[in-house]
Amino acid sequence: MIQQYPSRLLEKAVQEFAKLPGIGRKTALRLVLYLLKQETGEVEQLANSLTTMKQEVKFCKVCHNISDEEICPICADHRRDRSTLCVVENIQDVMAIENTQQFHGLYHVLGGIISPMDGIGPNDLEIESLVGRVAEGGVEEVILALSPTMEGDTTCFFIFRKLAAYDVKLSIIARGISVGNELEYTDEVTLGRSILNRTPFEGKQ
Amino acid sequence: MIQQYPSRLLEKAVQEFAKLPGIGRKTALRLVLYLLKQETGEVEQLANSLTTMKQEVKFCKVCHNISDEEICPICADHRRDRSTLCVVENIQDVMAIENTQQFHGLYHVLGGIISPMDGIGPNDLEIESLVGRVAEGGVEEVILALSPTMEGDTTCFFIFRKLAAYDVKLSIIARGISVGNELEYTDEVTLGRSILNRTPFEGKQ
Repeated sequence: MIQQYPSRLLEKAVQEFAKLPGIGRKTALRLVLYLLKQETGEVEQLANSLTTMKQEVKFCKVCHNISDEEICPICADHRRDRSTLCVVENIQDVMAIENTQQFHGLYHVLGGIISPMDGIGPNDLEIESLVGRVAEGGVEEVILALSPTMEGDTTCFFIFRKLAAYDVKLSIIARGISVGNELEYTDEVTLGRSILNRTPFEGKQ
Repeated sequence: MIQQYPSRLLEKAVQEFAKLPGIGRKTALRLVLYLLKQETGEVEQLANSLTTMKQEVKFCKVCHNISDEEICPICADHRRDRSTLCVVENIQDVMAIENTQQFHGLYHVLGGIISPMDGIGPNDLEIESLVGRVAEGGVEEVILALSPTMEGDTTCFFIFRKLAAYDVKLSIIARGISVGNELEYTDEVTLGRSILNRTPFEGKQ
């Protein structure tokens, strides 16, 4: 169905919004009409924050996390444990793990996972720089915190082989039943893993 | 849960996006990180299209529809039937009706409907200007195309009283069961209406 817009400026703004992932033309139109009702200053704030961010945001030279400086606040924080690296797929995963407040080491953001279907190979990811960080020394443990999918597992295995030559402990985040989930409804692969990887019961979890 | 962002620029962009209706912080973050991966030109196009639209878009002096000129393309089109006005709540409704290709008259956009709950009274809407258009003469029929809700019905009734003094035919869009819907699952008020407002069967609908 061809939407007839009475304004080319509106049409242009809707087109631009509809390029964003998960935003269709109907949602784009709703957002644009909402902005049209707001103060000019509000719209300019949104527009400026996007261009400023795009122009000025940097990626940390060490871990490739997003940052306002050359080195991100996590890598720059001297209270953090420099002997443990946590390998994640993207920036969202750094934020998710930071929110748990259970990890106090440094990160390494791959910028994706190996996915032949999407044409992403090892060379598109920050794997060489991870090997470089390990080769420099000082790293005792590398924790692989990738999604438990086929692509995640492939990437883990690739990193495992790349780091095999180095004297570094390699671990992977636990896979088991989610806290709060019913055992009955957990899929059998996960349940099987949770039995194989059982941990000593210490009276509290 | 407080999200710790590693970049204040990112934080600012997410905040601005999350002000949009129906966009929470998670979606805002997803959109912003998507934009961060795009070319600088792409992000600037989005930003510019928003500010340009906000600064330059006008509202038609006659029907209050959105427009790039003083008079919108519909009001300016001399092939359209100037004796019929279709009263709608907002710009989206104009587009929805235009898409049906079943209406060839002019519109009148109220800019909302009477809703005491939201503090919107008749004076906040373009009702006086509608009365003005009717008073000028030349209008033979006013079609009320408002949503069949309590607020819509109140607004219809208010307009009905305002236009009572003028020699103009007032009609309301048909309410009945939706095309393609099952009779069994249609609510009883709609079904009742569809029986009361039955139309002669002419062999095709």
